[in-house]
Amino acid sequence: MDGGYIEHMHRAWLVAILVCWPCWGQTAGDCKPSTLNIPGAQYPCVYQNNRVAFRLMAPEAKKVQLRLGRVYDMERGPDGIWSTTIPPQVVGFHYYYLIVDGVQVNDPASESFFGVNRESSGIEIPEASGGEYYQAKDVPHGEVRSRWYFSKITQGWRRCYVYTPPDYDTNVKARYSVLYLQHGGGEDETGWVIQGRVNFILDNLIAAKTAKPMIVVMDKGYALKPGEKMNWLPGAPGEGPRAMASGTFGEVMINDLIPMLDRTYRTIPNRENRAVAGLSMGGGQAFQIGLSNLDKFAYVGGLSGGGAGRGGFDPKTAYNGVFADAAGLNKKIKLLYMSNGTEEGSGARTSYEAFKKAGINSVYFESPGTAHEWLTWRRSLYDFAPRLFK
Amino acid sequence: MDGGYIEHMHRAWLVAILVCWPCWGQTAGDCKPSTLNIPGAQYPCVYQNNRVAFRLMAPEAKKVQLRLGRVYDMERGPDGIWSTTIPPQVVGFHYYYLIVDGVQVNDPASESFFGVNRESSGIEIPEASGGEYYQAKDVPHGEVRSRWYFSKITQGWRRCYVYTPPDYDTNVKARYSVLYLQHGGGEDETGWVIQGRVNFILDNLIAAKTAKPMIVVMDKGYALKPGEKMNWLPGAPGEGPRAMASGTFGEVMINDLIPMLDRTYRTIPNRENRAVAGLSMGGGQAFQIGLSNLDKFAYVGGLSGGGAGRGGFDPKTAYNGVFADAAGLNKKIKLLYMSNGTEEGSGARTSYEAFKKAGINSVYFESPGTAHEWLTWRRSLYDFAPRLFK
Repeated sequence: MDGGYIEHMHRAWLVAILVCWPCWGQTAGDCKPSTLNIPGAQYPCVYQNNRVAFRLMAPEAKKVQLRLGRVYDMERGPDGIWSTTIPPQVVGFHYYYLIVDGVQVNDPASESFFGVNRESSGIEIPEASGGEYYQAKDVPHGEVRSRWYFSKITQGWRRCYVYTPPDYDTNVKARYSVLYLQHGGGEDETGWVIQGRVNFILDNLIAAKTAKPMIVVMDKGYALKPGEKMNWLPGAPGEGPRAMASGTFGEVMINDLIPMLDRTYRTIPNRENRAVAGLSMGGGQAFQIGLSNLDKFAYVGGLSGGGAGRGGFDPKTAYNGVFADAAGLNKKIKLLYMSNGTEEGSGARTSYEAFKKAGINSVYFESPGTAHEWLTWRRSLYDFAPRLFK
Repeated sequence: MDGGYIEHMHRAWLVAILVCWPCWGQTAGDCKPSTLNIPGAQYPCVYQNNRVAFRLMAPEAKKVQLRLGRVYDMERGPDGIWSTTIPPQVVGFHYYYLIVDGVQVNDPASESFFGVNRESSGIEIPEASGGEYYQAKDVPHGEVRSRWYFSKITQGWRRCYVYTPPDYDTNVKARYSVLYLQHGGGEDETGWVIQGRVNFILDNLIAAKTAKPMIVVMDKGYALKPGEKMNWLPGAPGEGPRAMASGTFGEVMINDLIPMLDRTYRTIPNRENRAVAGLSMGGGQAFQIGLSNLDKFAYVGGLSGGGAGRGGFDPKTAYNGVFADAAGLNKKIKLLYMSNGTEEGSGARTSYEAFKKAGINSVYFESPGTAHEWLTWRRSLYDFAPRLFK
């Protein structure tokens, strides 16, 4: 302690200047600071037509670029501030980076989000309408709890997040169904909470009585046994690699995570009250884990991942033959769910049609105008959660 | 969904190469990757003698530097990798940055930590011994819950973190004392959880029966009423500004936060079971808020902040004269606590002596060999929490 807090405060009030390091002037016209900026940062800002303006103070740099999907050159002003305004962006959450003399770095003005196997900058292009369901609203709020547990499989401590519904602590005799919900490749257990806004989506659905109160569990989709090594899949140039999950995570979920949950929380510990879903890589994991453990799960969801697979679905062999007996599977699985954004392809519908041809019941959802990104997955969760445990 | 998850996996296993983008070779000798690196990153690494090696791939940059306390020039290798190894560092957690052609950015190899009013890189220099108390150990674990609440004062939604002790959900009739614990200037409500490891410290203290099971509440120490503007205090060059809290946060704590906590959690809602403490700016806030609201708090702590103030303590006027009646105050306050690291001065002892001269009981703690940094505050919490609610 330097004992100087009071003095410090006095100095601040006396000086009373409004210095803001990442603010570099006010935004122009209707350009509003991104909601994901750090406090005080005016840039990046988003125009009403979804153009986005970026700035970086870099008087000594030779070249500054922006990577948001593609790479844009930024332009140096006489004051050493580099700037660019890019064309209208798709609504929703996007990862982005700045490239300073060839080095891909985070924008100092943005909060950080774990994605693409690194801390990344993020920008949110607000929807003109329809985005209320993932906002904090005046409804009862659940909690997101960080829970540490020891994994016998990995012989290490792991952290998962557990969403508990608003009445969990007051309705102390109630027991709840559980959705296990996984992030995508290169992301981690923070993804659904921060980028995905899982708690607000569930709070709003539960308040509207559209979804049943449920517990949602989000774990890190990677796991290594002692001595096992992570496999890395090279990413797009400059994006870094994507960490590839091994089957070990499935073992952790079945042997460590689910037993810990059922021991620690007031769950209904049976297959009719347990769902597994995920996005992208996590969707693949949900299909793999769910279909291999139908004694544990009655609901399986793949958001932009999982499903029938691209190269010719063969019900006799896919997923170890679980689809071979269509009638039996239909009785067993209460919901087989796929979704995607219309800007990333039509895998969900393709899977739905392949399953249909094989006599398998499934449901698919398409998010209009969104890509392989978080708004697709928020909308998918908003569509998926009400279908569970009914 | 591109339906390609399975294919994706096959490709990964077939390729089966170990590509790791921020790994740039293996670490040398006894240099161990920092525990705060992103998965797979080998640098920065920490030698057993606490020297630290940093690397950055930046073939096109003219100049790369490291800022960790002071600024170090990094050296370019023929492969475009810049590197430096810096002298032994003080143990504990330090914020740091890289400077690429004059632009201060985060190290892509580090996780991000909110400090110095921005997302920052962080490095942890492990203690040779004595650091077990902030590690995950085989003891019952509490939870850290993120809780959203509406503030009437700011007219907005706020997030706080609530640590609940291990038995909170099983011992459903029990009620608990509450410690309100604040971060420092430029940090936010994530600080005590991530950098401070508050949950592990409490878990370990509670398991050892050294501290009573308690709830710990961590809120963001900034608050603005509608129309009110944030005041910024300029930081050291290149560090960005420090946001200065106004008195509004105190109003939020008294009028919004404490009533919400007492309504939502099984607290013991009286002054004998309520403490307020904080670090640096948060220590100042704890002293201001605590001493102005002695009907609400019986325990007040300032870690590297708060205390008697630097410029001549006058018990008649300091903190609106609350110290003028020493005997009355001694009866009222169960603990007035200050601490600091020995490398940042001796403010805690100075405050203790000033208080003693005025007949005021207080307690101080000095963390040997640590500075104005998180290891000082972890140690302080470890010393402080056992003194509460007894």
